[in-house]
Amino acid sequence: MFRVTRRYRFAASHRLHTPQLSGEENQRIYGKCNNPYGHGHNYVLEVSARGPLDERTGTAANVPLLDGLVERQVLAAFGHRNLNTEVAAFGGAVVPTSENLGVEICRLLKHHWHEAFPENWPKLEKIRIAETDRNIFEIEADEIA
Amino acid sequence: MFRVTRRYRFAASHRLHTPQLSGEENQRIYGKCNNPYGHGHNYVLEVSARGPLDERTGTAANVPLLDGLVERQVLAAFGHRNLNTEVAAFGGAVVPTSENLGVEICRLLKHHWHEAFPENWPKLEKIRIAETDRNIFEIEADEIA
Amino acid sequence: MFRVTRRYRFAASHRLHTPQLSGEENQRIYGKCNNPYGHGHNYVLEVSARGPLDERTGTAANVPLLDGLVERQVLAAFGHRNLNTEVAAFGGAVVPTSENLGVEICRLLKHHWHEAFPENWPKLEKIRIAETDRNIFEIEADEIA
Amino acid sequence: MFRVTRRYRFAASHRLHTPQLSGEENQRIYGKCNNPYGHGHNYVLEVSARGPLDERTGTAANVPLLDGLVERQVLAAFGHRNLNTEVAAFGGAVVPTSENLGVEICRLLKHHWHEAFPENWPKLEKIRIAETDRNIFEIEADEIA
Amino acid sequence: MFRVTRRYRFAASHRLHTPQLSGEENQRIYGKCNNPYGHGHNYVLEVSARGPLDERTGTAANVPLLDGLVERQVLAAFGHRNLNTEVAAFGGAVVPTSENLGVEICRLLKHHWHEAFPENWPKLEKIRIAETDRNIFEIEADEIA
Amino acid sequence: MFRVTRRYRFAASHRLHTPQLSGEENQRIYGKCNNPYGHGHNYVLEVSARGPLDERTGTAANVPLLDGLVERQVLAAFGHRNLNTEVAAFGGAVVPTSENLGVEICRLLKHHWHEAFPENWPKLEKIRIAETDRNIFEIEADEIA
Repeated sequence: MFRVTRRYRFAASHRLHTPQLSGEENQRIYGKCNNPYGHGHNYVLEVSARGPLDERTGTAANVPLLDGLVERQVLAAFGHRNLNTEVAAFGGAVVPTSENLGVEICRLLKHHWHEAFPENWPKLEKIRIAETDRNIFEIEADEIA
Repeated sequence: MFRVTRRYRFAASHRLHTPQLSGEENQRIYGKCNNPYGHGHNYVLEVSARGPLDERTGTAANVPLLDGLVERQVLAAFGHRNLNTEVAAFGGAVVPTSENLGVEICRLLKHHWHEAFPENWPKLEKIRIAETDRNIFEIEADEIA
Repeated sequence: MFRVTRRYRFAASHRLHTPQLSGEENQRIYGKCNNPYGHGHNYVLEVSARGPLDERTGTAANVPLLDGLVERQVLAAFGHRNLNTEVAAFGGAVVPTSENLGVEICRLLKHHWHEAFPENWPKLEKIRIAETDRNIFEIEADEIA
Repeated sequence: MFRVTRRYRFAASHRLHTPQLSGEENQRIYGKCNNPYGHGHNYVLEVSARGPLDERTGTAANVPLLDGLVERQVLAAFGHRNLNTEVAAFGGAVVPTSENLGVEICRLLKHHWHEAFPENWPKLEKIRIAETDRNIFEIEADEIA
Repeated sequence: MFRVTRRYRFAASHRLHTPQLSGEENQRIYGKCNNPYGHGHNYVLEVSARGPLDERTGTAANVPLLDGLVERQVLAAFGHRNLNTEVAAFGGAVVPTSENLGVEICRLLKHHWHEAFPENWPKLEKIRIAETDRNIFEIEADEIA
Repeated sequence: MFRVTRRYRFAASHRLHTPQLSGEENQRIYGKCNNPYGHGHNYVLEVSARGPLDERTGTAANVPLLDGLVERQVLAAFGHRNLNTEVAAFGGAVVPTSENLGVEICRLLKHHWHEAFPENWPKLEKIRIAETDRNIFEIEADEIA
């Protein structure tokens, strides 16, 4: 069994604020990230898949298929976007923190995985998203509904 | 004569659009960066100063003074900000490209340099700003009015 | 369940030598790191915590609380220090290798975790310490007494 | 129990092509990597071992022994080499993909581990090989025969 | 006047050997890089251009035009290639060292610059090529015929 | 004319303190770096040389000769050392700041350059030393006596 990890980059903006809390509480929890006009990041996304080696080709993943899936479901939807106003998942009470962004990316990849990999080879294992090189978030695909 | 370079990081959002051109022209020139809702970056700023060695202390710059200046003039003003709506310099016809952002940062440092370094030791030499690790902009302080 | 990792940096010096072995054995085991006058590193520390998402805020950790804990317990104690002479844990027979440094950091974070995170959300999972970009050490919090 | 990871670098060339498939299929699967004249990479190899701390020396691995083993078995055999023509393992139907390169490196380290570490301290845990900073492959030593 | 630098990556293989010298001399000069079967690198290319700011757009270069030029003249010709056998410039007595590779890239960009930038805005200033992160070569466009 | 840059790394410790100033002034100027027990860094050194291309070999520098010179004059003298107590240049009133360390390295390379490169091909141009990835110092060889 191999783990194959592929790294992608995209730039986006966001504002951290939840209507479920007062302005003061938002400010206390999110600090400068609560700035009403937003800010942005160069996100680094790593998608990890796991599977056995195809003996004939010597590969554990069809990387062009993975790239196509990530391009369609993630980079086209989140790249050069304002996450709060342009991504439906963050339109309501879901705050576009990197945790929720990771959940959303993992959910999209999981739901569309079968389209790209009908034989479920390899299996989506986890994603890792870094909003700066000091803040890194990881989630296992099995944790996602 | 030494060159001392100090590196800083800040996150901000921007939209590239000029009212002096049509929507189509904006789209053609700025591509995805023209998205009306904006996007963002982790900017990496390098400030370079040049000066002789102070023989007694063995230093070519007082780094805490430089940090204070950059904190007050740059990081507090641009960090976690929407450059279009929160930075006065970009309120009108000046588009917050990384080039113009570099000009503005260099201008601010140059205008306030004397406050931090009354003896003009070291001299501000240039700034370098990277909006991603593939797009890098440099400007000499002498080029700035 | 999320893993949140936060990266910190600090500079320190150390000398690798144990009084339990002869000078020759110390030299053989530690090589140039046995130099009696010491040397130093820019250490890179990663602290990983694991926990469920707080649905309301969309976060898996209160990062400012983590930063405060690491500042007080690790950076203030080890940053710009001589590990052999200034850190009590390394005063006796415990050699300040990166392994032992990692054990000590993990122990400090574990013992003071409850102060910073009274609800034990998230849980301290592991730490990773790199003394150069070629030498990396990881320890699970569960392994530490 | 500690994980100790050590990073190595080597440059090599390869061509991805299997005689078990037609030219068209090779082209479809391997794309530009199927170019008959080959291309190359700066490979980054990480070898991770796991073991308890030696209380006396404060180390979880004898790094010079590990370096010697990797030098003899990996760097001397693969560094500055054409993997297809100079590495016996890839002479036949085994394509020198990074996956198969990882299998071969892991197999060599596993088979020769006892020579370098007669007490099996620490234990070889896994290897990670990156052919670019976007393509990363990991394999556990337990998976290798 | 701004310097705009854009970074590109490509993988290629080469062998260092000149028919003008004996086998022994080749071995002495090029060491392991003289291996008859070749080896390869992930090359990192930086192209720097210099020009005044276009006041209206706030840019010092039309980056998509630069990308197109580099794609056509450099990446398509050198990426995933064996430099010795597939690049005409290196077919004879010109050894594909990184220096000569840099000369060739700079010459190609200079000769085709006018196609991409008919107004010669910005001006090609220099290129920088790194064959590993330890070996870096720079050449000014003015030095090239 | 080419610039060839080669990157080296070494670990060392230092304390910043000058006997020419009071304890308070030392503390004010050097801050935490004035800690009497010292601290350390992973220094990154870049040595740049400049010269014409040797047409026959396609090289602008004999890199093994440069490596030998840097190994003998710099890495053996400064690597895994306490700069204050083990480097003669810093025994007196010269404080081992990165600026003075750069001066000393540049002086050593300049004085011994002729031994390694009797034809003065290439010419030593400058050195760059980074004590962390945020603090970078550059000096031209021409500035050094």
